[in-house]
Amino acid sequence: MKAKKIIVIGGVASGPAAVAEARRTDSEADITIVEMGPDISYSACEMPLYVSGEIANSERLVRYAVAKFKEQFSSTVFTHHEVERIDVQKRVVMVRDLTTQHERALSYDKLILATGSGAVVPEALQSSSRDVHILRSLQDARSIVDTLDPRTIHHAVIVGSGFVGLDVVESLLHRGIRVTMLASEGRVLKGSLDADMSALVVDHLEQKGVSVRNERATSLDVAPDGSIRAVLTDIGEKIGCGFVLIAAGTRPLTELGIQAGLKTGESGAYEVDSQLRTSVPGIWACGDCIEKKDAVTGKSIRAPLALNAFRSGRVAGRNAARSGKGRPAQLGPIVMATAISASGLEVAHTGWSVEEAQSAGLAAVGETITHRSASSLANHHPLCVRLVADPSWGKLLGAQIIGLQGAAQRINIITALLRTGATVDDLYNVDFVYSPRLAPAHDAMMIAARMMQKRLIGKR
Amino acid sequence: MKAKKIIVIGGVASGPAAVAEARRTDSEADITIVEMGPDISYSACEMPLYVSGEIANSERLVRYAVAKFKEQFSSTVFTHHEVERIDVQKRVVMVRDLTTQHERALSYDKLILATGSGAVVPEALQSSSRDVHILRSLQDARSIVDTLDPRTIHHAVIVGSGFVGLDVVESLLHRGIRVTMLASEGRVLKGSLDADMSALVVDHLEQKGVSVRNERATSLDVAPDGSIRAVLTDIGEKIGCGFVLIAAGTRPLTELGIQAGLKTGESGAYEVDSQLRTSVPGIWACGDCIEKKDAVTGKSIRAPLALNAFRSGRVAGRNAARSGKGRPAQLGPIVMATAISASGLEVAHTGWSVEEAQSAGLAAVGETITHRSASSLANHHPLCVRLVADPSWGKLLGAQIIGLQGAAQRINIITALLRTGATVDDLYNVDFVYSPRLAPAHDAMMIAARMMQKRLIGKR
Repeated sequence: MKAKKIIVIGGVASGPAAVAEARRTDSEADITIVEMGPDISYSACEMPLYVSGEIANSERLVRYAVAKFKEQFSSTVFTHHEVERIDVQKRVVMVRDLTTQHERALSYDKLILATGSGAVVPEALQSSSRDVHILRSLQDARSIVDTLDPRTIHHAVIVGSGFVGLDVVESLLHRGIRVTMLASEGRVLKGSLDADMSALVVDHLEQKGVSVRNERATSLDVAPDGSIRAVLTDIGEKIGCGFVLIAAGTRPLTELGIQAGLKTGESGAYEVDSQLRTSVPGIWACGDCIEKKDAVTGKSIRAPLALNAFRSGRVAGRNAARSGKGRPAQLGPIVMATAISASGLEVAHTGWSVEEAQSAGLAAVGETITHRSASSLANHHPLCVRLVADPSWGKLLGAQIIGLQGAAQRINIITALLRTGATVDDLYNVDFVYSPRLAPAHDAMMIAARMMQKRLIGKR
Repeated sequence: MKAKKIIVIGGVASGPAAVAEARRTDSEADITIVEMGPDISYSACEMPLYVSGEIANSERLVRYAVAKFKEQFSSTVFTHHEVERIDVQKRVVMVRDLTTQHERALSYDKLILATGSGAVVPEALQSSSRDVHILRSLQDARSIVDTLDPRTIHHAVIVGSGFVGLDVVESLLHRGIRVTMLASEGRVLKGSLDADMSALVVDHLEQKGVSVRNERATSLDVAPDGSIRAVLTDIGEKIGCGFVLIAAGTRPLTELGIQAGLKTGESGAYEVDSQLRTSVPGIWACGDCIEKKDAVTGKSIRAPLALNAFRSGRVAGRNAARSGKGRPAQLGPIVMATAISASGLEVAHTGWSVEEAQSAGLAAVGETITHRSASSLANHHPLCVRLVADPSWGKLLGAQIIGLQGAAQRINIITALLRTGATVDDLYNVDFVYSPRLAPAHDAMMIAARMMQKRLIGKR
């Protein structure tokens, strides 16, 4: 019997996880992974630690160097190769060697798309200036470090106020660079935090010396030698700077599949079933380029998170390799939950914000409280908790938390509850541990639940 | 209509909560609280911060001074009064003023027992030496401080290795006093931690200079002037010291109710229903002196925890005062979950240890893992997690966690899951947040769940 040919497109996180699981599932399969960039199997989430200079060598972000990956998973690896076209009839992908421009056809029995997501750069801000960057790939991170390391940059502008923007703020502050952030509506993490919680983060950033401006970048002023001079904004400001990061959003990279006839959902990501089959037979998809099922509402959502990348990669790899043997692997519904260190402030969210829920057509109310992290008689700091619930029967929809060390971890309890369809009463009833030096007699989450109970009773 | 007479016996935590809720429920009731000691409404859990000297004034542990409590809840308060007998036929309690020895009869319509738990002191260790103490009440704490403050004590012996013992170790170390702990089987927190986890705590204590000895105290050597000279142990050792704490266990204080015919369960605590009614009409009980229903197994357990004291106090207070109006309040099943700072090491547990489960006749297996608190490239420290599950279908039974700052908080997620009857798979599937500076890509809890999954598959 001929070995099954499995091709995986995309080499950052989900693709390598798919290769590893496919290999575990079928020791005979002929497995190939194709990646446009020079690296595979690296930790994109840790790039800010390299950009900051805390890690000197970008190789430390790489889990498997190419040679090691090939050996470990007995697979063929094409880096610097771009897949240009999928022919679903012939089951062939056309691949271009980006070094030689040579094109070749690779046939497959099973195909896995793990192409991830890419940066959205508004046309007016596209630039070849060496000082203007995005941060999606490890090559992007190296390019930033190559810009920052040899020079003294006094002031940087970050266009955008999402996760990448906040990560790089922290990296630049670590380098002693002054930062201006251009934030739509003057807010940060807009999809995750409601306005009142965002305001706490903005206050903290400004205390750390970051200027957060409610302005939109309209164009870049680049000198003839390619260096940046300034960012121009929609209120006519000209913000002088020596470095610019464009972190204005991401989108799933799905052109290849769309061209091949794969269906995408409202979010633009591929529609898949729980086995991660796309709409075209023989093609699976995983990672940031697919829609997942939200555990709270059942809606299809994008959830570009590392854990989803690994998990979905393993499911796609297993199912592509199994050939009907055993039970198919499944990706269950997920909860969108994130954490970030915003210049030392811990910020985490899970599920739905009031704003996001309402724009998705859900009834949602929020309640925000601040309480101590431990007894008033011991060392403690304030924790700010926002709960989001369905007003009609108190089902939990999400939560947000902001505080100092240890705050972000506390979001996991709400995530665990969200998966069970829990109500505000269920949260209130949790037997939170109490120890004066470690936790107050009444946990902040419990107090938030109590306040929400009162609010909902009032509403009925 | 005559005002309803409600008497609450016991004034530390559950009793005052019962008074407060009874007053909220019935603004007309005639409410009396009787307490043996001089204080009511104080935070017993925070006493170690006073013993350590971190808090100079014991009044800071008191939430409501007597006068303020009387006013706030329009209630009669008898401190320094002991209830000697309940006459359930006549609905009368006989109360002795401990100052004057005067006895009086107080009649009630509804009675609430909130007598809590007391220290178990082996007969051979009972002593009137000023240097030999227990720590149950605020008076005990004052007595300890009065012993420690004026003198230079070099070495203390703590008999027992449970929560009170560990709390006082931390307090004494804070005062610069060397500590020897006599620990049965050389273990700490035996009901909460399995042996491997206990060993980590013992190692830490010994690193902090505490001598943890697997010896039993058999008698005390007290000088004629009442000062302690030494603790003698079962292996013939004579441990010289200037201070002794007996923290050898607690028991529910139920003599009063037993005499009045109230039923107690296997644990010795009062049997109550979900409305906290005892077996005798007109008498409710709450706090440390009652049995609760364990949410994991449905078994009746003691769970002497502050949160349970408050919650059960409110339920008893509401139900005693409601006179059939509205729906009765209920205390739902609870999860026994604790946290403690053991000389800087955070230790938490929830649900059942393997040992406790097995001695209760449950099938249980444990799996212990150690993983990082954050990315290997960022600041991180080790977290040790032990999961306990039913081997036949993977139902979670409990967990234990040990680590540095933030470790104990993580136990709450397991507690929340335990309440839902979750399995190891449910824990594995939680969308733990990931952010390199705050949490690793794969959370320690998730890794523990994965290891348990593998173990259980192997067992089937």
